[in-house]
Amino acid sequence: MPTANPLSSVTAGVAPEALLPTSSRLPGFYKLDLQDRCTVLQAAAGFSPEELAALTAGLDTRTADGMIENAIGVYGLPLGIGLNFLVNGREVLVPMAVEEPSVVAAASNAARMVRAGGGFAAEADESIMTAQVELRGVRDHEAAVGRVRAELPALLAEANAMLPRLVVRGGGVRDLEVRGGGGAERLVVHIHVDCRDAMGANIVNTLAEAMAGRLAALAGGYHGLRILTNLCDRRCVRVKVRVPVSVLAAGDFEGDEVAEGIEAASRFAEEDPYRAATHNKGIMNGVDPVVIATGNDWRGVEAGAHAYAAQQGRYSPLATWRLRGQELCGELAMPMAVGIVGGTLDRHPVARAALRLTRARSAGELGMVIASAGLASNLAALRALASEGIQRGHMALHNRLHNRPSSVTAVAAHNVVNAASVVEAKA
Amino acid sequence: MPTANPLSSVTAGVAPEALLPTSSRLPGFYKLDLQDRCTVLQAAAGFSPEELAALTAGLDTRTADGMIENAIGVYGLPLGIGLNFLVNGREVLVPMAVEEPSVVAAASNAARMVRAGGGFAAEADESIMTAQVELRGVRDHEAAVGRVRAELPALLAEANAMLPRLVVRGGGVRDLEVRGGGGAERLVVHIHVDCRDAMGANIVNTLAEAMAGRLAALAGGYHGLRILTNLCDRRCVRVKVRVPVSVLAAGDFEGDEVAEGIEAASRFAEEDPYRAATHNKGIMNGVDPVVIATGNDWRGVEAGAHAYAAQQGRYSPLATWRLRGQELCGELAMPMAVGIVGGTLDRHPVARAALRLTRARSAGELGMVIASAGLASNLAALRALASEGIQRGHMALHNRLHNRPSSVTAVAAHNVVNAASVVEAKA
Repeated sequence: MPTANPLSSVTAGVAPEALLPTSSRLPGFYKLDLQDRCTVLQAAAGFSPEELAALTAGLDTRTADGMIENAIGVYGLPLGIGLNFLVNGREVLVPMAVEEPSVVAAASNAARMVRAGGGFAAEADESIMTAQVELRGVRDHEAAVGRVRAELPALLAEANAMLPRLVVRGGGVRDLEVRGGGGAERLVVHIHVDCRDAMGANIVNTLAEAMAGRLAALAGGYHGLRILTNLCDRRCVRVKVRVPVSVLAAGDFEGDEVAEGIEAASRFAEEDPYRAATHNKGIMNGVDPVVIATGNDWRGVEAGAHAYAAQQGRYSPLATWRLRGQELCGELAMPMAVGIVGGTLDRHPVARAALRLTRARSAGELGMVIASAGLASNLAALRALASEGIQRGHMALHNRLHNRPSSVTAVAAHNVVNAASVVEAKA
Repeated sequence: MPTANPLSSVTAGVAPEALLPTSSRLPGFYKLDLQDRCTVLQAAAGFSPEELAALTAGLDTRTADGMIENAIGVYGLPLGIGLNFLVNGREVLVPMAVEEPSVVAAASNAARMVRAGGGFAAEADESIMTAQVELRGVRDHEAAVGRVRAELPALLAEANAMLPRLVVRGGGVRDLEVRGGGGAERLVVHIHVDCRDAMGANIVNTLAEAMAGRLAALAGGYHGLRILTNLCDRRCVRVKVRVPVSVLAAGDFEGDEVAEGIEAASRFAEEDPYRAATHNKGIMNGVDPVVIATGNDWRGVEAGAHAYAAQQGRYSPLATWRLRGQELCGELAMPMAVGIVGGTLDRHPVARAALRLTRARSAGELGMVIASAGLASNLAALRALASEGIQRGHMALHNRLHNRPSSVTAVAAHNVVNAASVVEAKA
């Protein structure tokens, strides 16, 4: 059972029990048939029959046809539920759209271990999306920067005047930064906008296009590109966990052995980009399925995550792990450009229902849930790698869950990467 | 009409006309209603009614339930068709599963421009997937490396003996490389395996687990992690295009202005990681929808792409553009770990049908199609950015195509990133 919700500032005026499902612990869920799972989920989520129906409605071709061009139908990704998530004391049922076996089971399993240490402690920056306005032909950088800075209050006021609805919602332009752009006659203005609950691409792109002429005139040049950057490093989410070593035991491996192995795996990723790429892929195994299920743009989140991982010069892991006493401490930091209004959510009934399932009340809160799923996936993969290995722990068990013959030695070609043991996902 | 298929070595024994649809140019396709599009597509693809039915069958919940754990239903992504693609002289209809408006139209539009310059010229490395075996506690690196190298022929033979079916298909272990792993007592053995038409994760993971003990004994240490790297930089695909400047004209912008703007945009991305992240996001807007539609693992392809983009120390664009005389020359290089057998393809009827639609006869050939879609998306985005801008060119036109009120000034929150003008996608 959850304790008091620590996000009380966000929940002002809303009774906490209205926001919290009884529990995200649903033992035996995996054993039920799909229809029974839906029934249990409806109760756990406090969904009406209509809300459940929306969640399982799939996508009709007419809606698909209205979303993209040249549509001929729908491609279906299996939609599963990540269990056991406790995020800032809040019980969360996590919708995950993904094709890869074991991702959902592994994340649920890891979330149960994290729960034993109090769950995921997450925080999110404000929803700062950044547009780049490239200025070319700027001969005198110093003078240009000076003129832009002198106009800063006026520029901010003009920009906010273009975003009246966003300002009413508490968002708006927060800062305007002038950077050298590498090239001799290039300056780049970064416009930082708090987009509140929107992903914000349209907001900042439109603003950048509207302001480019004015900025170019100030700088004594002409404008080049005007578009957001997906490396939105002022819009990060950070998640920390402290997992009791005892719950990490796996097969013949004691908890402390596994914990040491996970720390060693983290250090390996910190030192070797070839390992870091796969380490981060395992994080995105948890991240993307939630991004997709809630109607968000996974290419944007992927680009932000990996470019952020490369920001210090060497491609590095987004999450790191250390053994401290009897606790394994993990933390993840990554940009998270997701929204809970607009875009796909305006059109896709399953995305809307999946978002409701998470009970996220802000874009930041959704980002914290997504990042928690990412850190859980990372933990599950590292635990398997630090004990029996991915293949032995993984495919055999996925097959057992599905009553299929095991074929570890058959080396079937299967897109299973960074999966993890699902033994204990049963619980 | 296509000219002779340059991939004759791959097509030996297959009549070229059996491999080539009449054309991927289907003028007016976007105007048709969805059912008529399907009819036209069936004819263009030479599909039987059953094949068409498979492509538009969606995914039933029973199949979804067999793919992942805790399944409750299906999340639908709209499935559209990228048109106008000519890849190595081969007409290709490109299946794309994506939620973002304008991605399919923009890629189709750019593919038509590329076609005017002869289409996409692509090549792929062999399907080399790499497993990492981490060896810890190795006190004497030099001696360990010497012992592994001395055993190399035996190790390769032992490894291949574990992969009899792959070896029969022409694949197998190609190389075994010992690298310093950063840490003082760490060595990392990279096992490079040609996985032929499989993505190969299971193959190399199983092999790494099987060989780790032997390698650790040789090195005088013990094994740590044993798993593939997603930074599979021996499995790259490269695509080049030469676009006549004249076809790039957009709105009030002449072709040569646009071409110069695209080269300048490329240089901006080459100099600024904030811009490179979004440049690459635009590439992945074309890549991922084909990866998903053909049943492949997009997190793996994303991780490979972005980690590769960071490999030279500064996060860089995967594709670059230069104006040479009257041609705009673009090239893209990126890792591409996709398969045409196994995994999701064993279970997902739409993925199988979508793969058939591409007529890819090898994993490499599928990778070339995917990368072509990526380069097309990049070109479309840069052309819009170098002319009227993303918002003006894009959302207004998407809305017009869908008879929705335009709301450029309304700054609706919409996940539109790196989209592009769809004016000429009509053709």
